[in-house]
Formats: sequence, structure tokens, C-alpha cells
Amino acid sequence: MPKRYKITIAYDGSAFHGWQKQEPPGEEPLRTVQGELEQVLVRLLGTPKQQLHLMGASRTDSGVHALGQTAMFDADSSIPLERMALAINARLPNDMEIRTCELAPADFDVIGGVTNKQYRYRVFNAEHKPLWVRNAVYHCFNAELDAVKMNDAAQRLIGTHDIEGFSAAGHGRENTVRTIYDCMVFVDPVYPDEIHITIQGSGFLYNSVRIIAGTLVEVGRGRFTPAHIDQVLKTADRTIAGPTLPPQGLCLEWVRYG
Amino acid sequence: MPKRYKITIAYDGSAFHGWQKQEPPGEEPLRTVQGELEQVLVRLLGTPKQQLHLMGASRTDSGVHALGQTAMFDADSSIPLERMALAINARLPNDMEIRTCELAPADFDVIGGVTNKQYRYRVFNAEHKPLWVRNAVYHCFNAELDAVKMNDAAQRLIGTHDIEGFSAAGHGRENTVRTIYDCMVFVDPVYPDEIHITIQGSGFLYNSVRIIAGTLVEVGRGRFTPAHIDQVLKTADRTIAGPTLPPQGLCLEWVRYG
Repeated sequence: MPKRYKITIAYDGSAFHGWQKQEPPGEEPLRTVQGELEQVLVRLLGTPKQQLHLMGASRTDSGVHALGQTAMFDADSSIPLERMALAINARLPNDMEIRTCELAPADFDVIGGVTNKQYRYRVFNAEHKPLWVRNAVYHCFNAELDAVKMNDAAQRLIGTHDIEGFSAAGHGRENTVRTIYDCMVFVDPVYPDEIHITIQGSGFLYNSVRIIAGTLVEVGRGRFTPAHIDQVLKTADRTIAGPTLPPQGLCLEWVRYG
Repeated sequence: MPKRYKITIAYDGSAFHGWQKQEPPGEEPLRTVQGELEQVLVRLLGTPKQQLHLMGASRTDSGVHALGQTAMFDADSSIPLERMALAINARLPNDMEIRTCELAPADFDVIGGVTNKQYRYRVFNAEHKPLWVRNAVYHCFNAELDAVKMNDAAQRLIGTHDIEGFSAAGHGRENTVRTIYDCMVFVDPVYPDEIHITIQGSGFLYNSVRIIAGTLVEVGRGRFTPAHIDQVLKTADRTIAGPTLPPQGLCLEWVRYG
């Protein structure tokens, strides 16, 4: 009788073409987080490739990182639960790691069951290059950002709104209302060159967090006032929001279930 | 009349075959820090390739990092001194950066003039993978290191000694006496999974810092007592010191002149 496993996964997205498996017919499959993990699971569990379905909570884009992506799969394995993460990790490449592995109820839904998730967007705000974290930040070198104003703007996102104005065209969702539980902007207490944007919400639309980060950075530069956030929410007009910041600054920190 | 420039350079050594230019005849040149920098200087300054001699204080190995490598070159350039670092950096790849650029006396000797340099060796001491710093640490996962004992051992290195026991065969130096001005081991106050080994000295032999780090780690595991350091110094016997730790944990932090 197969059991349902819930895992949390951390990865450095730099060398992955995103989460979702990509196997273009007649070509080499692209290196993806789902693809690498499925390969290991198939070998470890002896499940035929066609029968193993690994489903992730969030299809992170190419270059986007995760500390706590969640995923589920069904398997009939004799490996003791407390050894499962270790057994998987020993076979994974060194830019990804299973952090936890537990059993979930048979009706656990890794996508539909999400109640809250947190992303972090890191902005490196200094003239010099972000040499050591260059694949984990957006480098804003031509303006000194005002993190206090950015945080004022961030507070205005908290609540239940139509977030269509903060989404890329073609997101394909009918319902564009989401609840933002928290949004904060602060300077890193240890590395003052870095500004962190954290956001928690019931869900997001395509590119939402990167567009919200881009809009907050415009506030930080002084191009928008914090009240501009209200305008984007009210009009749902993508063209008046800020730019989509690059993927490498983004990290999926955790996903919570009801 | 050419002027002598002294620069300090930071680089992430992960994607370099070390500092020193390597142009095997009939083959593609390997990617090195010196090679990349010379290419940019030749284009920027208009000096013929054969006439530009960039000399570095330390020939860091493949995979070793630097925060403050120093180097010198002579050039007859009209670029204002305060624009020079910016002009070079704009042309450099994003894994290296000039930190300072200044004029030096015509007799400045970037190698012979060194009076003190500091290296840091980072040990990641936890069972989980060093996902985000994997190219900047040595991963010690099979023992909990005793950083206090390691620091006791480190203190014993301070002073003027023959350090031949802490060097790879074939270092090619006649004089193997060096002065260690300071050596410390401590747990990172922010990330307690990391142990830092810092060492300052008048100079080192080939692989010395990596062998010293390897010996201190053996003390941390409990295989050697701190007093074992005195034995290696007294006997100058490489075979009783610890292993050479991998290059990626090592960083050249700064170089000082008289």
C-alpha cells in the first residue's frame, strides 16, 4: 500500500532551469529541480519512472532559490522514514537538499492545501559588486534606496486585494484576489549593503513577488511615493507598477498548510 | 613616463584556475585571475600585451578566493587615478573586482615588500549541506569540532618557527623559517555552523595554510592534542601533520607592506 510523503527542499536555483521538469522531445532534458529529484527517487524507490509523480507547491522560475519548497510523492518503500531524507540527500547534487521528510495523510494536497507562503527578495544596494552573493541578489548600484519608505509602501500591501496590477500578463488565473498576511522591508543587521523584502501571502500570481519588489525599489529610489501602492491595487493596472526584478534575488522561504 | 600602480583585488576563485596566467602553447588559455585582468588592462591602457606585466603578491591556487590580493603594474595612462578602479571594474567579469587603486613608488615591490598577510580558512561543521556557501567552505560533517581546543592549538603556532612540517613537498624555498603573527579559531557569531581559522604571517610555504587548517581540524576532532602542533614544529615532519584541506575553504584576506 503506497504511502504519501511530504518533503521540504532547499536549493540554490542558479544552475537549474527552474522547478518544473522540462523534457523537450528529441532533445536533452533541461536540468530542473523536479527532474533531478525524480531521477533520484526513481532509482532509490525502484518505482517505474512513469509511475512516480513528484508534485511541488510552487513552480519556481529559472534562477529562483528555495529554502523550504514543499513537494509530495506516493511510494511503497521499506526505507525507514527517519532515514529517507538522508538516503535521498546522499544521491542528490550539492546544490539541492531535502530538509525534512514526513508522512502525510492520503488526501494531502501539496498545492491546493497551501494556506500561506513566504518569499524573500534580496536587494544589494551598494556601488561595489555583490561578489559573494551575486547569484542571490538584485544589484541596485545607481541609487541609495530609502528602506523606511519602502517599508511604508510594503505595509500598504497587507490585506485582501485584487493583485492583478502586480502580475505578468498571461497568468491564466480567473480569481486574482489574494491575501497578503505580511510584507516588510528592512536593512540586513549584519550586512548593511543588503535590503530584504519579505512577503507572506495565501498565494501569488505569475511574477507577482518580483513585480512587487520592483515597485518597492522604485519607492526606495523616490520615483514613486508609498501611496502609489494603493493606486496599483485600486486600478489593477500593471503598466503603473514597477519593473519585474531579475529571478536570482528571489527565494521561496516556506510553505504552510491549514 | 610610466607610473607604478598598486591595486587590491577581490575574487571568487570558484571559476578560476588560480591567479597565475596559464597559456599552454597550442591550446586555449585557461581562465585565470591574472589572465582576465591583463586582458582588460591591455585593452583599457592600450599597452601592447608583451609590455604589460601584472605581478601579484600571492599565486593563489585554483578554487582559492581573495578579498584583498595585491598586484602591481606599470602604465602611462591619462585615466585619472580616482576613475581607474571604476574603469577596470566596468570591464571585468562579475566574479572579480578591483577594490582599490593607488600610485606606488617606482621601487615598490609587490612580492618582496610584503611584511604580513592574512588568510582565512572556513570550515562548515554541520551534518546538513553548505548549500549557499558550498564553494567557500570545507564541509566537515562527520564530527563535532571542538573550536576551543582548536584555538589552543592555533595559539601555539604564533612566533618565529621553521614551518617546513606544514608544507607540501617541492615548495622550492631554501629558507623555511616564517613568523606567524597571529592565529585564531572561533565559531561564527552569526552562523554557528561555521568555524573560522584566521592566520597572519610574514609569509607561508606551498599549501601551508591548508595543511595548518587540516591539522587544527584533527585537533578539533580529538585525534591530535593541541600540543601536537609543537611536535610538528619541532620535528618539521610533514607526515605527522594533518591533511591538506581543499582549496575552496581558503581566502587571502589582505597583504601588508613595510
